[in-house]
Amino acid sequence: MRGLYIGRFQPFHLGHLHAVKYALEKIDEVIIVVGSAQHSHTLDNPFTAGERMVMIREGLKEGGIPMSKFWIIPIRDLNVHMMWVSEVKGYTPEFERVYSNEPLTRRLFLEAGYQVESIPFKKRSRYLATEIRRRMVHGENWNDLVPSSVAQFIEQINGVERLIDLTKTDNG
Amino acid sequence: MRGLYIGRFQPFHLGHLHAVKYALEKIDEVIIVVGSAQHSHTLDNPFTAGERMVMIREGLKEGGIPMSKFWIIPIRDLNVHMMWVSEVKGYTPEFERVYSNEPLTRRLFLEAGYQVESIPFKKRSRYLATEIRRRMVHGENWNDLVPSSVAQFIEQINGVERLIDLTKTDNG
Amino acid sequence: MRGLYIGRFQPFHLGHLHAVKYALEKIDEVIIVVGSAQHSHTLDNPFTAGERMVMIREGLKEGGIPMSKFWIIPIRDLNVHMMWVSEVKGYTPEFERVYSNEPLTRRLFLEAGYQVESIPFKKRSRYLATEIRRRMVHGENWNDLVPSSVAQFIEQINGVERLIDLTKTDNG
Amino acid sequence: MRGLYIGRFQPFHLGHLHAVKYALEKIDEVIIVVGSAQHSHTLDNPFTAGERMVMIREGLKEGGIPMSKFWIIPIRDLNVHMMWVSEVKGYTPEFERVYSNEPLTRRLFLEAGYQVESIPFKKRSRYLATEIRRRMVHGENWNDLVPSSVAQFIEQINGVERLIDLTKTDNG
Amino acid sequence: MRGLYIGRFQPFHLGHLHAVKYALEKIDEVIIVVGSAQHSHTLDNPFTAGERMVMIREGLKEGGIPMSKFWIIPIRDLNVHMMWVSEVKGYTPEFERVYSNEPLTRRLFLEAGYQVESIPFKKRSRYLATEIRRRMVHGENWNDLVPSSVAQFIEQINGVERLIDLTKTDNG
Amino acid sequence: MRGLYIGRFQPFHLGHLHAVKYALEKIDEVIIVVGSAQHSHTLDNPFTAGERMVMIREGLKEGGIPMSKFWIIPIRDLNVHMMWVSEVKGYTPEFERVYSNEPLTRRLFLEAGYQVESIPFKKRSRYLATEIRRRMVHGENWNDLVPSSVAQFIEQINGVERLIDLTKTDNG
Repeated sequence: MRGLYIGRFQPFHLGHLHAVKYALEKIDEVIIVVGSAQHSHTLDNPFTAGERMVMIREGLKEGGIPMSKFWIIPIRDLNVHMMWVSEVKGYTPEFERVYSNEPLTRRLFLEAGYQVESIPFKKRSRYLATEIRRRMVHGENWNDLVPSSVAQFIEQINGVERLIDLTKTDNG
Repeated sequence: MRGLYIGRFQPFHLGHLHAVKYALEKIDEVIIVVGSAQHSHTLDNPFTAGERMVMIREGLKEGGIPMSKFWIIPIRDLNVHMMWVSEVKGYTPEFERVYSNEPLTRRLFLEAGYQVESIPFKKRSRYLATEIRRRMVHGENWNDLVPSSVAQFIEQINGVERLIDLTKTDNG
Repeated sequence: MRGLYIGRFQPFHLGHLHAVKYALEKIDEVIIVVGSAQHSHTLDNPFTAGERMVMIREGLKEGGIPMSKFWIIPIRDLNVHMMWVSEVKGYTPEFERVYSNEPLTRRLFLEAGYQVESIPFKKRSRYLATEIRRRMVHGENWNDLVPSSVAQFIEQINGVERLIDLTKTDNG
Repeated sequence: MRGLYIGRFQPFHLGHLHAVKYALEKIDEVIIVVGSAQHSHTLDNPFTAGERMVMIREGLKEGGIPMSKFWIIPIRDLNVHMMWVSEVKGYTPEFERVYSNEPLTRRLFLEAGYQVESIPFKKRSRYLATEIRRRMVHGENWNDLVPSSVAQFIEQINGVERLIDLTKTDNG
Repeated sequence: MRGLYIGRFQPFHLGHLHAVKYALEKIDEVIIVVGSAQHSHTLDNPFTAGERMVMIREGLKEGGIPMSKFWIIPIRDLNVHMMWVSEVKGYTPEFERVYSNEPLTRRLFLEAGYQVESIPFKKRSRYLATEIRRRMVHGENWNDLVPSSVAQFIEQINGVERLIDLTKTDNG
Repeated sequence: MRGLYIGRFQPFHLGHLHAVKYALEKIDEVIIVVGSAQHSHTLDNPFTAGERMVMIREGLKEGGIPMSKFWIIPIRDLNVHMMWVSEVKGYTPEFERVYSNEPLTRRLFLEAGYQVESIPFKKRSRYLATEIRRRMVHGENWNDLVPSSVAQFIEQINGVERLIDLTKTDNG
């Protein structure tokens, strides 16, 4: 059975890795949807879809998850909720179950007749992404909250510098 | 003479019904535009355009307004204000007058050369929609603020459950 | 039971009227979707959605069909087929059956799990709309192919003049 | 009085220059709309909006037309005809008259209440753009059909090479 | 050398004029991009792109800047940051340098390999536009913060009345 | 080094497999872009992006290509050529080279500064996709032109039935 796991992955961190592992205990393959794929270069969405896909692939490899167990698929936000499930369906292999703690995602897939399951550590995961971006901006240590391959990739693309640049105000 | 009356109708309530009755004292036919038609499944816009059209038709029937007196037409938000009047014109029968208390709508149709009239009870109406959704979320009584046929329809589609689901936070 | 009937209605003619009557022998209410709603002012789509809605309402009234038996709803072409059924669903009251002879429409609703039925005279209907526009352009008689109220409305909006204007070439 | 003159200017040629001169005999200022502004890199639309704006400005300068007499404004094709006049209005200074031989443009601005005038040499102009692109592809002489500054600019951006590259087929 | 200067110009004021003058001390031609071009009729973006283009041209003329030294080009917000530089490039003549104090603009053009320079008075400029709109709403004197030709144009189009109309609330 | 290989893969066939193998002789990793990703259910684009991604993954597995050597990324057609390279860049890991025989793709990436290489058997590949769809429609044998896993998948989703349904005309 295939399941869907949707996130923004700004950036991909250890909470996400745990969520994927958790899902793979229940299902055979997980489709990881990189949501808000068109967004980048903002404080909440600093990284492009392509950059996030690299992070996810590197992080899952480091986490020991075989590539045959997952798909990584970028999908933009449409902002027309009544059509979003059909967009996701069109861009993905067939799936039966959705792993999400996000209320809108849960509701939309429930109305469309899918099984929807919670992920135990998602609350913490959500916290982590915001916290990681906050630490990046303030020069605090964030590296141990992500797989080390993700930390290396962010360094390689000067990701922290980009985020800090974006926090500068016009009055600075 | 035909007039235009624009709302989001989330949900259609007694204030809206009064507004339609008020307009029909002055004009022959009213075109009811279901605005923000593409939006649904949010706290401010829980219902789809199709659901809202059912509510309006049922509510007006209950209110004793003959079907020959009104049109119900869904129009999405374009968010390009300078083009919005022309979009409304293209999707509607010809009209001469606009009933609205909403400043942007009033201004855009005034600049386009239409008669724009206020609706006496619209202020209360606006309050009502927000208040109804608030009561739905908090389990308070909201039924007597809408036509009873609308209350039945919302029950039938599990509308309150949807709204409550959408209020749940990711941290819950 | 509600059924869906989709057309472009450029213009609404007697074949369309027969199709609606045919559907209403089988179902309680028909939702008439004005497709390609955003298009107008072309040789194939001369009339706006608003103009077509007037034609349909007038034509059905002339045909003796009570207003409580039908809905008229404009829906733009999205041109992303995999999402189109969900757009139609979001803009319409709930329905169980689709009346269509158009292969793409039939296939999309079949894949989405709807009953799909043919309309006996639709082939002729399709021919009619193209033939009517051809006659309009060539100054031949077209009036008796549409309800007389539709012919009057087209005259009132100078519809034939518009179509002829659009056929002029830049080299003329 | 200001007038509007709409073209695609692929490329700007002597016929366009004559049209602008013709319009400026009748009106004080001409707003030159670079239509289909989003398109480029096709056989019919090889040049970007930015490239076409340079051609127009250079060509008009060479033609001795003072800059205070014209505006050059790029506007993308919306492909929703009923909204197009309002888009043009929103992107331009106020104008009263439209110079065009193009049937759709003429009809849309006429319905919106504008004066619409023909340009005597537009037919030839239309021919010229297609003919110029044909000559470019076939290695024939095209330079004397455009202002010499335009020819120089096209050479500078390797415009003919781009057009020829685009004509190559996948089977070549 | 050409440089790019991006603003919303709601409205064009003396700070903007100084910025253009500053840039023209360093470069030969400045391309003034009217950003958020599709927006108008809001409290933050009251004026259409066309109106803003008139203000800029009049203001620069009053400031003694020859028309051969600048371009004025409207570009809509795409809200997909990773594609925005390429949209700007497609709508403009070739340029090498960007003048901006806005962090996102600076970052995007830096990543795309452009020279990015600050404008000394931009901070004050940003303040000015907000302050001017605030004064307009409150009936205070704003005229001496803009070129007098801009003040006249705003008066001519009843710009202050529009802004005040838009501030009215539905509860008023 | 990473390279890009763009196709529509309607369906994925042996020519595509050879092209991927060819590219992987020259580069370390290939990014396979599923173009026109939003299109499906037409005669030229019968399969959804999700379906095509399954075909590609299955076909490459059957062809013995390790998953670590490729990425499969769906990207919609934007139809604004001047912005397309930047969209592709935003949705993909960094790459230096592009494998394509398609003239527009080649030209756009060349102008953007990428290495562009031809694929020896692409001409034949292009022929194959059209030929396969033709054979599917006419009930001829097509299975040996695709990897057998792709043939099985198409059978499993009733792909040939869909294509045949779409070829039916309204006059049938």
